[in-house]
Amino acid sequence: MKLLEDRILQEGVVLNNSILKVDSFLNYQIDMKVLKAVAHFIAQHFQNVDKVITIEASGIAFAVAVAMELGDVPIVFAKKSKTTVTASDHNYSYTVHSFTHNTDNNIYIAQDFLKPGERVLIVDDFLAAGESSVGLIKMCLQAKAIPLGVAVACEKEMQGGRKRIEELGVKVCACARITGFTNNRPIFSKEEC
Amino acid sequence: MKLLEDRILQEGVVLNNSILKVDSFLNYQIDMKVLKAVAHFIAQHFQNVDKVITIEASGIAFAVAVAMELGDVPIVFAKKSKTTVTASDHNYSYTVHSFTHNTDNNIYIAQDFLKPGERVLIVDDFLAAGESSVGLIKMCLQAKAIPLGVAVACEKEMQGGRKRIEELGVKVCACARITGFTNNRPIFSKEEC
Repeated sequence: MKLLEDRILQEGVVLNNSILKVDSFLNYQIDMKVLKAVAHFIAQHFQNVDKVITIEASGIAFAVAVAMELGDVPIVFAKKSKTTVTASDHNYSYTVHSFTHNTDNNIYIAQDFLKPGERVLIVDDFLAAGESSVGLIKMCLQAKAIPLGVAVACEKEMQGGRKRIEELGVKVCACARITGFTNNRPIFSKEEC
Repeated sequence: MKLLEDRILQEGVVLNNSILKVDSFLNYQIDMKVLKAVAHFIAQHFQNVDKVITIEASGIAFAVAVAMELGDVPIVFAKKSKTTVTASDHNYSYTVHSFTHNTDNNIYIAQDFLKPGERVLIVDDFLAAGESSVGLIKMCLQAKAIPLGVAVACEKEMQGGRKRIEELGVKVCACARITGFTNNRPIFSKEEC
């Protein structure tokens, strides 16, 4: 998607040819025009979605915007901790390794909010190694829900997440699909999404 | 706001006359129609907003929806941890005590994303003791930004947050303003917001 690629070239900061910072418009401060354009692009690629799921925290903005584009379907976000007071006792869960932060975290979705037969779109800001997306797919499968796809604003394809997800039979859609960095600038795929 | 009050009466679960669970439609699974109605209500009460700020994670959905209603102003969310790799070195910060989870957490906003003179609306899902809202107000003041108000979907007024915020000279707006619980049912204020 040209709008997002252009913005990444203008405002993104690449560190050590590997880390892309898009904090100023995409996942810390968020430009609503970019967010809406991303959501509109993603919504064109999926049909008959019953629910959008994501993972806290930075995926939530994208889940909301995509859910609105899909006709106000509900969203659910996976949590990174079981809160002590208000948590459900019955959760789907998965252990996710973060390569960015080098930590292992369990993620949870209450069983009440992921139901058999639901057609689910997984939405996030970034796709890299795909750990959290794979986790959300596995939780859909635990629930006998149907993971229709993984849709993200920005993908770092060279980190292998797309391949892992497609091997599970799930479609991937990325608005900006980065295949590598050279001289601290991203290289975008020619593929549409 | 009648729509939200009705939904809380229908689907909210009150534990021990003190804890209100609205996980099924407000802050875990989120009903977009409720979210949009909340955002529309809040946006009517504030003018000339430059930026919406919130705190991860469950405030983000409301911040996005309110920012859209306000004409696509940007949002920024305070973070509960300094991430190791992509974090800024220059942050505003505040230590927030969570009465729900009985923990102390520092929250951070990068100095790049909160500027002198910016007219800022603070948005969250819940207002109780007001710790995180006070933290966000203090960070606005650190940045010499102008905190216009604190706007939330649901307030538990008896926990004192409104009073603390108003004592700082900041307006409070709540879509559902709960003054207490009786027989595990919420009592709503007659005040408009």
